[in-house]
Amino acid sequence: MAAASFARQIGHEFARPELLRTALTHRSYGSPNNERLEFLGDGILDCVVADLLYRQFPDLPEGDLSRMRANLVRQETLHQLAQTLNVGEQLHLGEGEMKSGGATRPSILADALEAVFAAVYLDADFAAVHCVISRLYAPLLADIKPGQFQKDAKTRLQEFLQGQKKRLPQYALLETSGAAHEQSFTVACSIEQPPLRTTGSGNSRRVAEQNAAQAALALLEA
Amino acid sequence: MAAASFARQIGHEFARPELLRTALTHRSYGSPNNERLEFLGDGILDCVVADLLYRQFPDLPEGDLSRMRANLVRQETLHQLAQTLNVGEQLHLGEGEMKSGGATRPSILADALEAVFAAVYLDADFAAVHCVISRLYAPLLADIKPGQFQKDAKTRLQEFLQGQKKRLPQYALLETSGAAHEQSFTVACSIEQPPLRTTGSGNSRRVAEQNAAQAALALLEA
Repeated sequence: MAAASFARQIGHEFARPELLRTALTHRSYGSPNNERLEFLGDGILDCVVADLLYRQFPDLPEGDLSRMRANLVRQETLHQLAQTLNVGEQLHLGEGEMKSGGATRPSILADALEAVFAAVYLDADFAAVHCVISRLYAPLLADIKPGQFQKDAKTRLQEFLQGQKKRLPQYALLETSGAAHEQSFTVACSIEQPPLRTTGSGNSRRVAEQNAAQAALALLEA
Repeated sequence: MAAASFARQIGHEFARPELLRTALTHRSYGSPNNERLEFLGDGILDCVVADLLYRQFPDLPEGDLSRMRANLVRQETLHQLAQTLNVGEQLHLGEGEMKSGGATRPSILADALEAVFAAVYLDADFAAVHCVISRLYAPLLADIKPGQFQKDAKTRLQEFLQGQKKRLPQYALLETSGAAHEQSFTVACSIEQPPLRTTGSGNSRRVAEQNAAQAALALLEA
């Protein structure tokens, strides 16, 4: 896929295509690369997603909006969006990074997508990048159920048990597997009363713990 | 000072003055209040300050820009700016909060100022709030010296040694002198390989350690 076609896909034709090229250039390739653009794009994304949530949920308190935003701008979400746009195919990577699978690494793809947002902003203006981000996030925003981004699963499980004066859950790492940059973690969540043990997996210990807590919540709430 | 005069001072005349009123209403006063606007304003401020830094320092790496931004958007800085605008005089606070000094509390003032940014954005557009924030931050931005927000000397020394797979430096307090409120500290920084020992002094142990690390860095980089 050519850069022009990628630009059409995100919905912005670049007057200065060199900005897009820089946004898609990882530091391993040399200079100029996307590190500074990623800094700017990160701020733009925070701002636009805040605006979208503020308008979509006029009745929600700011705590709920904050949690929703954290979920929408985190690396996992950006990585998924970057995959739908095939950002990996457009990346300029150094040889070593390319050989070690950099084009599919979540952090590299997420950073590149943020840099693309900054490139759109610098190429045009805030309205243009607002439009690009709105389009890209529309399916995710349409999917949000207001209750869903209440507190995360570990917090809810903790509060559920505290509310019943029960002991807090214990989390234990059961297993890690995979190479350094694509590790998978499995964690057990153990509850004393009622006696219960669930497991969860994910590409970070944090995600695995949340998944184990979610499984425990599902059992307790059933 | 009337609200209209406050609006003139920040450089934006509100078409919908109720937005400004909400931005200046603390939750202790009731509803609507500025909590949701503060969420939105926080994102807007991050974005605009990122843009201002990106343009002002075309040669700085993103790490330096990030540290600069963190310093410019933190509560202390917002509190100072809110004071220059006399935001406290404009606040709507509940009676209890007013009596306990809420109008001068840094967190309340900083949050209200962020909410004002969101109000300008919603009243007009991104260009309008960009203009308001740029004007307000101009003196702070003019004051930044690029070297000022580099990593501190201890961090740089640690990274330098780690990069060479060397052992980390040891800091030891050699001497304190002077009365309680004007003490002077002298600290030694010892490095194993290459064998090196420098000293630094300052009015706190932290400053003394930084100065000792700076002296070690100067020798290592020479």
